[in-house]
Amino acid sequence: MDVISVIRTKRDRGELSDDQIDWVIDAYTRGAVADEQMSALAMAILLNGMNRREIARWTAAMIASGERMDFSSLSRPTADKHSTGGVGDKITLPLAPLVAACGAAVPQLSGRGLGHTGGTLDKLESVPGWRALLSNDEMLEVLDSTGAVICAAGDGLAPADKKLYALRDVTGTVEAIPLIASSIMSKKIAEGTGSLVLDVKAGSGAFMKTVEDARELASTMVGLGTDHGVRTVALITDMSTPLGLTAGNALEVRESVEVLAGGGPADVVELTLALAREMLDAAGVKDADPAKALADGSAMDVWRRMIAAQGGDPDAPLPTSKEQHVVTASATGVLTRLDAYGIGVAAWRLGAGRARKEDPVQAAAGVELHAKPGDEIRAGQPLLTLHTDTPDRFAYALEAIGDSYDIAAPGTEHTPSPVVLERIG
Amino acid sequence: MDVISVIRTKRDRGELSDDQIDWVIDAYTRGAVADEQMSALAMAILLNGMNRREIARWTAAMIASGERMDFSSLSRPTADKHSTGGVGDKITLPLAPLVAACGAAVPQLSGRGLGHTGGTLDKLESVPGWRALLSNDEMLEVLDSTGAVICAAGDGLAPADKKLYALRDVTGTVEAIPLIASSIMSKKIAEGTGSLVLDVKAGSGAFMKTVEDARELASTMVGLGTDHGVRTVALITDMSTPLGLTAGNALEVRESVEVLAGGGPADVVELTLALAREMLDAAGVKDADPAKALADGSAMDVWRRMIAAQGGDPDAPLPTSKEQHVVTASATGVLTRLDAYGIGVAAWRLGAGRARKEDPVQAAAGVELHAKPGDEIRAGQPLLTLHTDTPDRFAYALEAIGDSYDIAAPGTEHTPSPVVLERIG
Repeated sequence: MDVISVIRTKRDRGELSDDQIDWVIDAYTRGAVADEQMSALAMAILLNGMNRREIARWTAAMIASGERMDFSSLSRPTADKHSTGGVGDKITLPLAPLVAACGAAVPQLSGRGLGHTGGTLDKLESVPGWRALLSNDEMLEVLDSTGAVICAAGDGLAPADKKLYALRDVTGTVEAIPLIASSIMSKKIAEGTGSLVLDVKAGSGAFMKTVEDARELASTMVGLGTDHGVRTVALITDMSTPLGLTAGNALEVRESVEVLAGGGPADVVELTLALAREMLDAAGVKDADPAKALADGSAMDVWRRMIAAQGGDPDAPLPTSKEQHVVTASATGVLTRLDAYGIGVAAWRLGAGRARKEDPVQAAAGVELHAKPGDEIRAGQPLLTLHTDTPDRFAYALEAIGDSYDIAAPGTEHTPSPVVLERIG
Repeated sequence: MDVISVIRTKRDRGELSDDQIDWVIDAYTRGAVADEQMSALAMAILLNGMNRREIARWTAAMIASGERMDFSSLSRPTADKHSTGGVGDKITLPLAPLVAACGAAVPQLSGRGLGHTGGTLDKLESVPGWRALLSNDEMLEVLDSTGAVICAAGDGLAPADKKLYALRDVTGTVEAIPLIASSIMSKKIAEGTGSLVLDVKAGSGAFMKTVEDARELASTMVGLGTDHGVRTVALITDMSTPLGLTAGNALEVRESVEVLAGGGPADVVELTLALAREMLDAAGVKDADPAKALADGSAMDVWRRMIAAQGGDPDAPLPTSKEQHVVTASATGVLTRLDAYGIGVAAWRLGAGRARKEDPVQAAAGVELHAKPGDEIRAGQPLLTLHTDTPDRFAYALEAIGDSYDIAAPGTEHTPSPVVLERIG
């Protein structure tokens, strides 16, 4: 087996054999295949695709490159969720304790933000004292005692994916559905969950800009999960406008706590409940009532215990920004568009996100929304509040907001997009 | 400017701008663009192509990465030839002294063999004492005093190409016409010749298997040369069967000397004369008679002086192989096929070529042909003689020969392919 023949096979639109896939993933993990060889192969895969068998084998080989976790000692069924990432997507924060309150165990291995989408761990780190890094034993202990855990994935899971993901990031080969699907699913399957609900975002603020692309990615991942014995369903959800009324780390924690307290923006509540029902169903938990668990405070109880178990103080005040800038509406009428990508880039530039992996983020930076598409607004009313600790960033953030919203004449009919667009599984 | 946006442009089937091309070639030469980034770009170029403007700019950027040579101090016009490589292609050896004998100066910067095609320098190194490595001053001196020089290209010419070529070799991105054309032409233009004749091979033993691909490569290179003020023409020539009756280093030198002595196989003589006429015409030399220069010994005189000027002894006996193995014809009839690729691989395996750049070659190894397509043969007559110093290689070489020839029933009509298939320019 040699790497050039593997590259040539895919370059010339052939199918990679099982042996070729197993060999190349193993050799790359060991360092016997060089980065420049793997990036040429990744570009060939991006441009020429892989079929379902190839994607399944590629995923299996990445799982086999590392350890697998085992939750079979838990007394409850496990349910996991993965979102492909969006602007204002804080859903994991209320969802994990909610599903735990309804009877499933929720192990959420999460990541950090890169680019215009936020990261769950960055958000939770704005809670004073909370720490993301747990050993496998600590993780199991938090999960067993509280029902839910949100923490960083260990280095032992799918090391091939870790190496390949870093390579794709610098070689323009991120946007390949087979590689995205196998990257996500190798980690989720290695993590050992019994069931998985995928939240595949579609729209300007998402990785997949169209519903068609989101559907292809969702179908690929549902197929991969099912083939590996994980009960998997996917919801395709709207990411043309931010979720909820906040984008930014502490801002999103505050909004999540509002949802756990029985309030919060309608779209966040709707998506949290839809995903909770799918997770409970996939995990085989009967007769649970997630809406009740939000209303009666039982989800909030799990949240408080989960945060405390990882060193956080659920009663400590969240950080607030040193400087604010209010963007007001330029006209009276109906807000017909508030673009997720523009808001996401603005929050990123205000300090909520990072440009390089090693950069820190600002806990209090971000964007607050005072209106959503479909709302009637008056000229001069506050539309957005920008938050940062470094006010020299306002101008750069305002550039990103420039074209991000449209106001139509008063009385214009505008029906905002539904939150959940499709279900696959 | 950042490399990911350059990669994405080509990945998404866009055109690279002049600025993008200049920047990426310079940054790669300096090491600011990493190998894994350039290999992803090379794969995107291979799969999505480049237009004429992009190829011209890419070539110009590679020329600009290094020094340019200057032959304007010579009293004669310069003429250069480049072959895309084939089996038994020893044409440079008789051609350079022949064209010099007719009045042009011939600076031939040549390479070594890799894979199944031989390298001109490897062939000449079988002449006792001859050395390939000259300084620029030594090169000019040999050229000025003898009219021709064949030597290794210095490190200063198109260093971007040198780096990119080595990368393409290990990443499955060699077979891209824009990259092949710009690689060849950047070196030839930097070398400073006034005119250039390209011998673009088509057939099983060539890099381009079909005449269509050879034509595309030839047209691309002729356009590049013309755009840079070099009078350039191309001949597309047959490489379905080996050129002449030998493939291997000393074997090919012996055959070249036969041609310079007025003998030699008809196809080698025909192609040598055809290329000589094109070179003299492109260089603007009138009233030369290459056939006469072969017949009257004047080309042989230049050969002897050229070899001696680089330390070689033109009278020393050439190395001969320690072991021979004769392959006999299995049937009586007409030889309708003798495959260039199979013979090239056999010569390579016998020790005439190398698998890795750092490997040595055997001077005496190779294959002698006793018949050519169109010849009538009898069962049991010698068809090939295999030469090597390491007889354990015979079995491996014979494997490559297995399917390499066809013998049709006696009396079958068979017209061998013409040597020159097309002329472009």
